Amino acid sequence: MGEFDLIARYFTRPTPRAVLGVGDDCALLQPAPGTQLAISSDMLVEGRHFFADVDPGALGHKALAVNLSDLAACGARPLAFTLALALPRVDERWLAGFSGGLLALADAHGCELVGGDTTQGPLNICITVFGEVPVVGGQGRALLRAGARAGDDVYVSGTLGDARLALDALRGRIALPAGLLAQARARLERPTPRVALGQALRGVATAALDVSDGLLGDLGHLLGKSRVGATLDTSLAIELLASRAHPAWAARLFSLKMQLECVLAGGDDYELAFTAPASARDAVQAAARQAATPVTRIGRIDAAPGLRLVDGQGRPVAGRYASFDHFA
Amino acid sequence: MGEFDLIARYFTRPTPRAVLGVGDDCALLQPAPGTQLAISSDMLVEGRHFFADVDPGALGHKALAVNLSDLAACGARPLAFTLALALPRVDERWLAGFSGGLLALADAHGCELVGGDTTQGPLNICITVFGEVPVVGGQGRALLRAGARAGDDVYVSGTLGDARLALDALRGRIALPAGLLAQARARLERPTPRVALGQALRGVATAALDVSDGLLGDLGHLLGKSRVGATLDTSLAIELLASRAHPAWAARLFSLKMQLECVLAGGDDYELAFTAPASARDAVQAAARQAATPVTRIGRIDAAPGLRLVDGQGRPVAGRYASFDHFA
Repeated sequence: MGEFDLIARYFTRPTPRAVLGVGDDCALLQPAPGTQLAISSDMLVEGRHFFADVDPGALGHKALAVNLSDLAACGARPLAFTLALALPRVDERWLAGFSGGLLALADAHGCELVGGDTTQGPLNICITVFGEVPVVGGQGRALLRAGARAGDDVYVSGTLGDARLALDALRGRIALPAGLLAQARARLERPTPRVALGQALRGVATAALDVSDGLLGDLGHLLGKSRVGATLDTSLAIELLASRAHPAWAARLFSLKMQLECVLAGGDDYELAFTAPASARDAVQAAARQAATPVTRIGRIDAAPGLRLVDGQGRPVAGRYASFDHFA
Repeated sequence: MGEFDLIARYFTRPTPRAVLGVGDDCALLQPAPGTQLAISSDMLVEGRHFFADVDPGALGHKALAVNLSDLAACGARPLAFTLALALPRVDERWLAGFSGGLLALADAHGCELVGGDTTQGPLNICITVFGEVPVVGGQGRALLRAGARAGDDVYVSGTLGDARLALDALRGRIALPAGLLAQARARLERPTPRVALGQALRGVATAALDVSDGLLGDLGHLLGKSRVGATLDTSLAIELLASRAHPAWAARLFSLKMQLECVLAGGDDYELAFTAPASARDAVQAAARQAATPVTRIGRIDAAPGLRLVDGQGRPVAGRYASFDHFA
């Protein structure tokens, strides 16, 4: 099977929203009047972002999910994406699985595959995603990292730490009961981009980003852009985040240190971290209900720079939690 | 040097045209009212698209040039691009050269680096580029592959075959005089995207695409989308295209077969092939002058499907010329 047959069979779809999809030199989009276009690009490399033997359907899902998560963090509505794919060889079974997982998630979000590239090379998946953000009164309404103010609450959506738990288990560092492993592995391999929540938080949240490299490191970027600091209650982080998905955690299957490590620095969570004024607590919960996505308040923004961890009694929690760095 | 320092040092630039550039979850573009957004993605893999020891500045140039060439083929004005980069290791000398070549070409076209991704992995460069195309009377004015009509002339810009000549020389298949090699190698490693010509041809050309895999193969896509055929004069192709850059060719340094192979199926040319009605010959030449880019008429569109090659006397020319296929 040649390059053009491969594209025709697995990656050419109707594009009712785009002016022109796959098959010409460029795709053509016509953004709705009064909108800005939000754009994000993520590259996934075998051995770095996924195991060589990962289910191709899960990989297709995740490759798009991590990009949709960036749109979610900006409060953008998904519109379209391009896919550039380097493949060691043409394996039709793999391609059918990969494109199936990819396009199922794309369809669920009305996000059209409009173009891209295929080439021979070490497996590499590069997706660039496009979303729309409304402009109101001349002001774009995207959620940005800058905007958090002293006194704001700090929230995280869903649960944290599951992906890291699965990774540690798959690497043989810890043993997990089968049911817990399956649940954690689903979070690692098929993350849920919080697209509806991001859009519901426009006009409510003051700042937002998605948690991909670990909560503390990512939140540090938000604090830096907003020129503020924060205090997080680690007991809320642990009890309210991880235990939702894993009652076993509450039963102390793992040490407190490991729980903190997973929740605060786990990575690959693809939840949203965001800030909102205390006066907006009802609005935040209404947005969460509208998006059918739980959110948990885990701290507050301080005027003083830096990120402080405290326990349930407000006492400082020691420990360093390294965020993921691709070149560290 | 970590991921974020690397991005800050080599890939963060002012973006006066974009609403938001590198540094948040998404970049934000606000396309001008009454425009469509043209989008293209190309991935370059070491060993497949470039030699491991290629000059990093040339590689940076080429990675963007092949994407700008797709915008040119649609008649789009460059606006912005994202860069996703997998690097085996952080090599600051390489990064300085690569980003220098990349951003020099970007600046020359007013094309802003607005976002992307960096990760560890086998060297892979994925660029997605964005351009603007005007909408006039509700109709987008992008040049498409469909649109060629029987009786139209067929044109090619610039010269063809140089990149293939350089590739054959660098692989030791042929010997080239040093001056000719340097000239051909510059075409291979630093192709010139025909951005001004593409825009000048809006409203003049009936169909267009860029020549990246070889003239005959690429033209075949245009004919297929337009549901027409074509007859090309190979004597015009050789004498008027290749000999412009390489007088040595005219002196019969190489066999006729090899000249035809380079011109008709060479690949990596990044010229525009396009069609226009015979009544538009003056307009085509005016567009070429405006863009300071020579164009050559090499054939005509036929109602009958298929691509026919004839010599200067209209006699059929035999031979099969394979286009580049990444998985063939």
